[in-house]
Amino acid sequence: MIRPNFTRRIQNALKNKDTKVLKSLCETLHPASMAGLLIDFEYDDIWSIIRGVSPERRAEIFSHLEGSVQAEVAKHIPRRELATLVTYMSHDDRVDLIKRLPEEIEANLMMSLSEDEREDIQALASYEEGTAGSVMTSEYLTLMPELTAQEAIDFIRSEGSDKETIYNAYVVDENHKLIGFVTLRDLILAKPDKPIREFMSTDLIYAYASDDQETVARIIAKYDRISIPIIDNHDILLGIVTHDDALDVIESEYTEDIEKFMAISGKHEGDGYLNTPVYTHFRNRIYWVVILAFMGIMSGVVLHHFEETLSSLMILALYLPMLMDTGGNTGSQAATVVIRSLALGDIHTKDMLRVIWKELRIALMTCLILGILAFARVMFLSRSAHIPAGFELITIAWVIAVALSFQVISATLIGAMLPLVVSKAKLDPAVVASPAITTLVDITGLLIYFGTATTLLAI
Amino acid sequence: MIRPNFTRRIQNALKNKDTKVLKSLCETLHPASMAGLLIDFEYDDIWSIIRGVSPERRAEIFSHLEGSVQAEVAKHIPRRELATLVTYMSHDDRVDLIKRLPEEIEANLMMSLSEDEREDIQALASYEEGTAGSVMTSEYLTLMPELTAQEAIDFIRSEGSDKETIYNAYVVDENHKLIGFVTLRDLILAKPDKPIREFMSTDLIYAYASDDQETVARIIAKYDRISIPIIDNHDILLGIVTHDDALDVIESEYTEDIEKFMAISGKHEGDGYLNTPVYTHFRNRIYWVVILAFMGIMSGVVLHHFEETLSSLMILALYLPMLMDTGGNTGSQAATVVIRSLALGDIHTKDMLRVIWKELRIALMTCLILGILAFARVMFLSRSAHIPAGFELITIAWVIAVALSFQVISATLIGAMLPLVVSKAKLDPAVVASPAITTLVDITGLLIYFGTATTLLAI
Repeated sequence: MIRPNFTRRIQNALKNKDTKVLKSLCETLHPASMAGLLIDFEYDDIWSIIRGVSPERRAEIFSHLEGSVQAEVAKHIPRRELATLVTYMSHDDRVDLIKRLPEEIEANLMMSLSEDEREDIQALASYEEGTAGSVMTSEYLTLMPELTAQEAIDFIRSEGSDKETIYNAYVVDENHKLIGFVTLRDLILAKPDKPIREFMSTDLIYAYASDDQETVARIIAKYDRISIPIIDNHDILLGIVTHDDALDVIESEYTEDIEKFMAISGKHEGDGYLNTPVYTHFRNRIYWVVILAFMGIMSGVVLHHFEETLSSLMILALYLPMLMDTGGNTGSQAATVVIRSLALGDIHTKDMLRVIWKELRIALMTCLILGILAFARVMFLSRSAHIPAGFELITIAWVIAVALSFQVISATLIGAMLPLVVSKAKLDPAVVASPAITTLVDITGLLIYFGTATTLLAI
Repeated sequence: MIRPNFTRRIQNALKNKDTKVLKSLCETLHPASMAGLLIDFEYDDIWSIIRGVSPERRAEIFSHLEGSVQAEVAKHIPRRELATLVTYMSHDDRVDLIKRLPEEIEANLMMSLSEDEREDIQALASYEEGTAGSVMTSEYLTLMPELTAQEAIDFIRSEGSDKETIYNAYVVDENHKLIGFVTLRDLILAKPDKPIREFMSTDLIYAYASDDQETVARIIAKYDRISIPIIDNHDILLGIVTHDDALDVIESEYTEDIEKFMAISGKHEGDGYLNTPVYTHFRNRIYWVVILAFMGIMSGVVLHHFEETLSSLMILALYLPMLMDTGGNTGSQAATVVIRSLALGDIHTKDMLRVIWKELRIALMTCLILGILAFARVMFLSRSAHIPAGFELITIAWVIAVALSFQVISATLIGAMLPLVVSKAKLDPAVVASPAITTLVDITGLLIYFGTATTLLAI
């Protein structure tokens, strides 16, 4: 690990105001590595560390910081220097930053920018959060269809230096309508004097600015593209989304999926945990918790129904938690595996019967182990418990083990089938939240438990 | 939706053995789109649909199918045609396919390949599953440092057509040792007669063949690279991993993380749900379930300890499930949010106090709502329940609501703190599985419940 070493060198240089060392570190370390080191420093120090280096490099390092950190650091940057920084940032990154700034700083900053920059920022900022438009950038390469391969390469050579990618270039007509697509690979491999129109790809993969950003990320992943063009309803090219943005989108989409599965609602806006207000956190969590509380009334009703049974055989109450937890665990496991397999395309709704057959066998193996453990547990824990006349501990242990086995089987099958049913109804299988499954199998579990007990023990 | 239309056209062409239509569809649709349509067809039909098109296109479409589907389709392909297909597949994809084939088919296939191909496959197949070596490809571009920019572009023009990417080229010495890196962008933007040695990047970002594939994917994401070189311990270049592989790795890593969090162990080998043996599924799930069963003994002990209390006030048993579910739900929600925030770098272990303070406020708002709901629920559900002399329903409802509120607060804080503590101990926070939190807060919940009841009701 060389990292602590670098951190210490930055700390010392900062203390001694040794701008030379700071500059050289900013220049030699990769911007992403440098940004990684900076998270250990205070917000105002971060600016002192990077301010000495060239504006391009400074903007690169700054852009690699987390969005919420960027906003905090920006508050410590003098107005004129902030304007320079923003000018050198890539067009999509700077819009994200500006959206996070307090209104006053934003207004100040916008006044310091040129009219062109201001218009570009306003255009990109106008798209709704979560859409393709909100993650696209306006730094892309366009080519005219009449250019030859060599002319296009020469053009890229002169114009490409400030573009997000030069590997994909988009061919547009005089109205900026998207009509084709060439990769730098195509240009390099083509005969130099061949016009682009003759070898450009016209089977275009694109997305609309109003499309969901997840859709766009999935398209990039599916077609292994470095970037894809974003157009409006009249096929006018508006911007591009690049492969690294797709990775970021997929990361935050995962967060949304896992949160949905753990019964947390709301969009993941990427503000970061600490910057999200307490009330927003509360609102995202309380929604499902209240629904679950109402679902829980059902298990309360079942329990009340069997109040007599419980009173006459108190020992049954002591093993209720075990039954409920086990059902919840095995049901959630099955649901997790099925939901992920659906998401990855490993299984489809038409495989329902094969899934049930597989889960049934898994459940049989599981309930064998857990049944034996439950039997041993009752015999051990309740060895000196009070057992009413007419009952024997071994019979009760046996009954509890059988009930638990049935519960494992039913919970596993419910957990596996629910996401498939939901998916068949064209809904996102992740809406079948794990706590909802737990609450649902609680109800079936109680019915199984008391059903088994009253039947086998004839209470 | 135009998709059903295409599916029907393929079905008709297949029925009428209209190879012309099939060929034209395979040629006009993007290989990824075509592969997407094929999942609705039987394995032997898939081969009939794509066999008529050129070998390059056929291999491209085939490579876009899921790994498990590829293996099934391959079983229906005549030996000689399978060998041709494999020759045209990209080097990393074909190794994945061969690993999935039954031994007999594999042996047959290997015999039909040239010695060069065989050696390349064996070299790539020798890396352990889950390492960088196992996902890298051997189709990369190398350049000698003495070439000029223009010579390099000419070289790429003649050699680049079968490479995985031509946008990154690696500079090696005469022993194939990695000494530098240039992008096609650098080459295009450089003066044509400048030697590569003078502008190649020597601050190399690389990974070792034995590194975890997740590490490699994270490096690609962090540095926004199109590919990164994979080397051995002597800096010899072995292969590259490309950005689209990084996306796949991050997908399966995410599956592993969510499964870990839902108490499912084992590596996600990408065999697909249906192709994984029942015993493997069972083994991955039973591990945690048994540990949890043993942890559950603790709550059994607590319950036994309060058997007297329960017997004297049966009604308390009826609200145990509500208390346990609520604790599990709120604790898991907090853990989910904290684990994802840690993974995304939004929070760090040093933020522990800020997290606790935030979660405490969220918990206070949540327990206010849930406390009121619990009170109403007891008053409603138990309105005609038997209450022993000396107690009043309203007092009991009040006590249950207070206990539930304490449980929400303690479960939320435990759920939020555990991942931070685990992360501080340099372990993956996702090992704090949601069911483990549920089982743990069950124990604290029972102590809170009976503690509150015995204190406030003086039983």
